[in-house]
Amino acid sequence: MDINKIGHHISHQFNKELEDIRNRLLNMGGVVEQQIEQAANAFMNSDLELAEKVIQQDKIVNDLERQIDQECTEILAKRQPAAFDLRLLLSVIKALNDLERIGDEATKIAEMAIHLNSTEYLSEHQHKGEDYYEIQHLVDLVKDMLHGALDAFARLNVGEVLSITAQDAKVDREYSCIIRQQVSRMMENPRNVRRTLDVLWTARALERIGDHACNLCEHVIYMVKGEDVRHVSREELQKTLQG
Amino acid sequence: MDINKIGHHISHQFNKELEDIRNRLLNMGGVVEQQIEQAANAFMNSDLELAEKVIQQDKIVNDLERQIDQECTEILAKRQPAAFDLRLLLSVIKALNDLERIGDEATKIAEMAIHLNSTEYLSEHQHKGEDYYEIQHLVDLVKDMLHGALDAFARLNVGEVLSITAQDAKVDREYSCIIRQQVSRMMENPRNVRRTLDVLWTARALERIGDHACNLCEHVIYMVKGEDVRHVSREELQKTLQG
Repeated sequence: MDINKIGHHISHQFNKELEDIRNRLLNMGGVVEQQIEQAANAFMNSDLELAEKVIQQDKIVNDLERQIDQECTEILAKRQPAAFDLRLLLSVIKALNDLERIGDEATKIAEMAIHLNSTEYLSEHQHKGEDYYEIQHLVDLVKDMLHGALDAFARLNVGEVLSITAQDAKVDREYSCIIRQQVSRMMENPRNVRRTLDVLWTARALERIGDHACNLCEHVIYMVKGEDVRHVSREELQKTLQG
Repeated sequence: MDINKIGHHISHQFNKELEDIRNRLLNMGGVVEQQIEQAANAFMNSDLELAEKVIQQDKIVNDLERQIDQECTEILAKRQPAAFDLRLLLSVIKALNDLERIGDEATKIAEMAIHLNSTEYLSEHQHKGEDYYEIQHLVDLVKDMLHGALDAFARLNVGEVLSITAQDAKVDREYSCIIRQQVSRMMENPRNVRRTLDVLWTARALERIGDHACNLCEHVIYMVKGEDVRHVSREELQKTLQG
């Protein structure tokens, strides 16, 4: 799809409104990307100040969701769009929700960073850092997925979507592996159950972020191709993307 | 708001379309309510057959989400609605997503029922049923919330919304209590960590269902009052409902 599709209206003002909505969504995406980055750093380095910052930032993301959603509704009422323009606005409304939830998950990770810091560490045999190698890997994977999804939104290009959703399968495998590993740690060292649960919840939050990145890809496909690919198989998805 | 608001169009066909959309959403809500009920029973009674049924049913819920969403989009494109009608359609689009996610959480509970059944139980001191008393209470709370939210949607009536969201605070307290209790159990009896985690994930899924029921209430308020009350304080919510 030609990115200039967005500027096909005779009304200069309408073109500007649609372009503006998309830019605002992408800016919100940037804020959320930074939230994940900072939440992960706060968790990894027990940086409580950074964790607090992420939690504060959640209000900004929530406000952005409401504002952009309202702008979309106003355009719908005023311009009564059809075809691609209607799909663009509906995709943005849905994408806002996913971005806001990613922000929520980042906030949970920041809260875990604070909670983890207040929980006493009770073993000489197990090094704190051990847990974090896998978490860092998961962070890298989901950050990459979200970046790819936002890039697809920016370029109205679904070419990379299959590789992003393939990465989600990797995230799920990595997540299951962390669960198994942490269950063993809890059995070996039950005094650290609270700490280990915090690592588990963090892994869960990251896995959820991966799911939301996939949802974002589905919204881009709907916008560009006009096909709702939620809950379809990988084969059907492939066919839609080639079609 | 007068429920007859929905029938204010000169076009008989348009009235019928809006009424139909709302009925279809409520039917989907009924399917999802049944999913929670059955998933909880499967979990509590180790009923594997019922658990499988819930998992199978998830496809129906997913299909309903896609179908009703598409019908909403078609009405948006064809009728170019404004004011209440536009809000109704946008609220339904958002509510579909929450119902679908509630279905996902019910499916997770059914999967836990199956997983729990395959995990050996390794203690004489702790009775299986102990965990379930609190879970059953959580189930009752969130079922009640969802029913109230769907009822508000059916009657376009926001009168009960405050009591539903108040119930969510109760769900959160109950959930935290289950977490603390299960953490103690894991420490006392580390051999049962896997089982205990399944109980934890189930409690988490129920807590999420409560959140989605609250989201549904927010969509009803937006439809009826035209105000976006996501992320607002309880005081602001109260003011909107009285205004």
